Amino acid sequence: MAFGENLEKLHNMDREMYHLEKALAVLRWDQETYLPEKGVEERSEQLALLEGIAHERLTLPETGRMLSELGSTQENPGGDEKLPALQRDFLKTLRRNYDRAVLLPHDFVSDSARAEGLSQAAWVNARRDNDFSVFLPHLIKMINFARQKAVYWGWQDKPYDGLLDIYEPGMGADAIAAVFTPLGQRLSALLKKISSRPRPDNSFLVQEFNLENQASFNRILLERLGFDARRGRMDISAHPFTTILGSDDIRITTRYLPRHAQSGIFATIHEAGHAFYEMDFPDEIRGTCLADGASMGIHESQSRLWENVIGRSKPFWEGMLPVLRSYFSAPLSNITVDDFYRAVNLVEPSLIRVEADEVSYSLHVILRFELEQALFSGSLDPADLPAVWRKKMKELIGVEPETDSQGVLQDVHWSMGAFGYFPSYALGNLYGLDFWEKLKSDIPGTDQLIAEGNFTPIRTWLRDTIYVWGRRLEPPLLLKTVTGKSLSPEPFLTYIESKYAEIYGA
Amino acid sequence: MAFGENLEKLHNMDREMYHLEKALAVLRWDQETYLPEKGVEERSEQLALLEGIAHERLTLPETGRMLSELGSTQENPGGDEKLPALQRDFLKTLRRNYDRAVLLPHDFVSDSARAEGLSQAAWVNARRDNDFSVFLPHLIKMINFARQKAVYWGWQDKPYDGLLDIYEPGMGADAIAAVFTPLGQRLSALLKKISSRPRPDNSFLVQEFNLENQASFNRILLERLGFDARRGRMDISAHPFTTILGSDDIRITTRYLPRHAQSGIFATIHEAGHAFYEMDFPDEIRGTCLADGASMGIHESQSRLWENVIGRSKPFWEGMLPVLRSYFSAPLSNITVDDFYRAVNLVEPSLIRVEADEVSYSLHVILRFELEQALFSGSLDPADLPAVWRKKMKELIGVEPETDSQGVLQDVHWSMGAFGYFPSYALGNLYGLDFWEKLKSDIPGTDQLIAEGNFTPIRTWLRDTIYVWGRRLEPPLLLKTVTGKSLSPEPFLTYIESKYAEIYGA
Repeated sequence: MAFGENLEKLHNMDREMYHLEKALAVLRWDQETYLPEKGVEERSEQLALLEGIAHERLTLPETGRMLSELGSTQENPGGDEKLPALQRDFLKTLRRNYDRAVLLPHDFVSDSARAEGLSQAAWVNARRDNDFSVFLPHLIKMINFARQKAVYWGWQDKPYDGLLDIYEPGMGADAIAAVFTPLGQRLSALLKKISSRPRPDNSFLVQEFNLENQASFNRILLERLGFDARRGRMDISAHPFTTILGSDDIRITTRYLPRHAQSGIFATIHEAGHAFYEMDFPDEIRGTCLADGASMGIHESQSRLWENVIGRSKPFWEGMLPVLRSYFSAPLSNITVDDFYRAVNLVEPSLIRVEADEVSYSLHVILRFELEQALFSGSLDPADLPAVWRKKMKELIGVEPETDSQGVLQDVHWSMGAFGYFPSYALGNLYGLDFWEKLKSDIPGTDQLIAEGNFTPIRTWLRDTIYVWGRRLEPPLLLKTVTGKSLSPEPFLTYIESKYAEIYGA
Repeated sequence: MAFGENLEKLHNMDREMYHLEKALAVLRWDQETYLPEKGVEERSEQLALLEGIAHERLTLPETGRMLSELGSTQENPGGDEKLPALQRDFLKTLRRNYDRAVLLPHDFVSDSARAEGLSQAAWVNARRDNDFSVFLPHLIKMINFARQKAVYWGWQDKPYDGLLDIYEPGMGADAIAAVFTPLGQRLSALLKKISSRPRPDNSFLVQEFNLENQASFNRILLERLGFDARRGRMDISAHPFTTILGSDDIRITTRYLPRHAQSGIFATIHEAGHAFYEMDFPDEIRGTCLADGASMGIHESQSRLWENVIGRSKPFWEGMLPVLRSYFSAPLSNITVDDFYRAVNLVEPSLIRVEADEVSYSLHVILRFELEQALFSGSLDPADLPAVWRKKMKELIGVEPETDSQGVLQDVHWSMGAFGYFPSYALGNLYGLDFWEKLKSDIPGTDQLIAEGNFTPIRTWLRDTIYVWGRRLEPPLLLKTVTGKSLSPEPFLTYIESKYAEIYGA
């Protein structure tokens, strides 16, 4: 078969994979938003069937043959060097997806999927009953499956790096440790400083906020941010998320808690940040495997940039507080922008990562990164996790869980075998500020723009410098391309130290 | 391969087909309810891909081989006579679906699908611009495709019967004409009688009905009817429908018009009738190709039974009017049950089928049936349709459209090539009352039950006598099994003549 014909066939195959993934996303979105209670079991059968079909199609021997004929190998995934860069990036991504799928024996895939189901169920029970021993045997199995998977993919020597590579291509444990070490030290120091200062008042945020008004405000908020309602929607789910049901159908969810209005507000802004990335890919990669975030961490850089750097800034609330007040005049009548700003940036070391403030958040992640490294190097026995968790929490964040449910059992990730995922959350903070530093040097007066609610210049910059690449560049190269520099924790640390010095007068 | 093994493999294949169809239903449901504006185009690509996969799987030569090895042929679709009745019905249905799919050449399927797309688009334009000539060449093509399809399926001599068989298995044009002839005569006579009587007042139904209150009332209504919200939902769409996303996930839609509250109310009851059928199949056929209505007409018998015979009855509003009044005290303050009953049963010959009252509705259907017969026998030139339509409307219903948009172009069906579909709508009325006559003889005091809102005995009877069969029995046999009699228009005519004699004092 001719060269061009192979390429065209691979593009058609990729287009089908894209549609299949999006069809799966429709089923999953519906499951989290509108599925009736009793429909859950059958929905998982539907999902399993479609996932099987997608896997079957991706791993057709014909795909491997065409990739090879185009010169794409594991060593040179981009194929023939005479191909245009875009096509080479396309082949590279396809090769990566194809290899990931075919290198795992069929029995291994079904065995680990089954084990994952049991493990998640055991984790739910263990967390409910605060009984780590129920989860332990499953955890050990999930660690072994994950290690074995990395070995199948060729990471015999450094299996944990193989797992990190799923979520952060091009970032090994050493590279991550190099930035996490100073990050951990300076955040701990900052946390210590803050703990000696008076606590800002946030009591006005902890009272009754009418749910319908919350919903109305969040719709206005989303519109002001520039979310295009013709190309997406916002619904409600227990855990907010962003999902892609088509290149013109990007959906987010949020949630409204009656006595905690800020939960929904920052969930909406966070998910909008994810959505903007997905909405603004260039036409040349739309609807292909390249229309995706560069990594989990780069994706998180966008959500956390919007949520924290923009959404938790004073200029942002100069613009939005009057709008919020129009929905909640009673609770907010005497509250100034400064009061509000200090309240939504309250730092309070706590046990649960997903509820952590901006300062301690990354410390929760570092704890998990250190534990995962130790688990995969063999220096930590999984049975010792609860004790080590408590000790490290005390060291890093200064609080200690009374129960394992509030400690080592709090996150779902390990029960799913998703080791190597956590670092992306903190890397997102770092990437975000590395980008932001460059953005601020390119766009003067961001504070003014944010206060005016004019987010277009920011979104345009993000689109033209970051989103334009989709997943063509791995994070280290993307960073270099955008900022001219390597990953550094400095911009994030400078930002956070100066922001909280001002708030806490420390 | 062993006998039992083939059967098991066919059941697995059927289960996969079931899941694929339901996954498709999720995508279609979402398209009608929540899909953002710009997502439409990609959604149709996703649907086309999944439909292709479903068709591919159904028509695997292995399926045909296994069916044959189990003794199933076109002549003896149920296979080996030693098999249990349930398995024979299963094989019969699978054989029917398989033959339907494999007997059509691949090119024919893709050519007709493409033509259908163009035809629907042309119909939309023709209706908008009131220009039948734009639609005519497409209509001719759709007639030819439909005829050719019937020929491929072996209906060379009576292609229209082959099309009717899609929607009403076992019911040919002669059998339908045998009941439609007296139906048409007596409905026309009734309509004439009514037209000479004073028109009941329904002005109180044509005023502002708050949309949120409509939504609240319709939720209560659905709950009172016994719709299990753990196994389904109700959303809003432009055209109300029922769809099955899983055997425990049956969804209906309704719509709320600001000045026309009864539109939503009767849509809700109508779709609930469809949903009950789908919700109450017995375990032995759940999740298989037998878990389906016996035919379009039998399905419609359920929706129209609930909507008209129950929902438009006086006892029903004895129970529900106080509830409705609690949401709309102003518009309904002085309205008695009798006023309300007469208003929602207003008979007013009109041009549009979907808005027709209970008396003239079937006449709209008979008109289409007669035209379809003439088109497929060749006695009617499609170019003459507009004129013949006007003439027949005048004869049958007493009104004449001024435009073709309000006449021959009003329905979508022909533009999709769905000839033979219309008769099911009126057959549903007849089946429904045939069933109802038997139900009333089995359950004493239905009026009392309906007035009390105790629908359980009725639903239980429908479940145990009709739904229990799924699509195992073709309509004629189902009717015989349930009522002991053949299809007759008498129960419907007796019901409608006495109901409207009482309302109109005729």
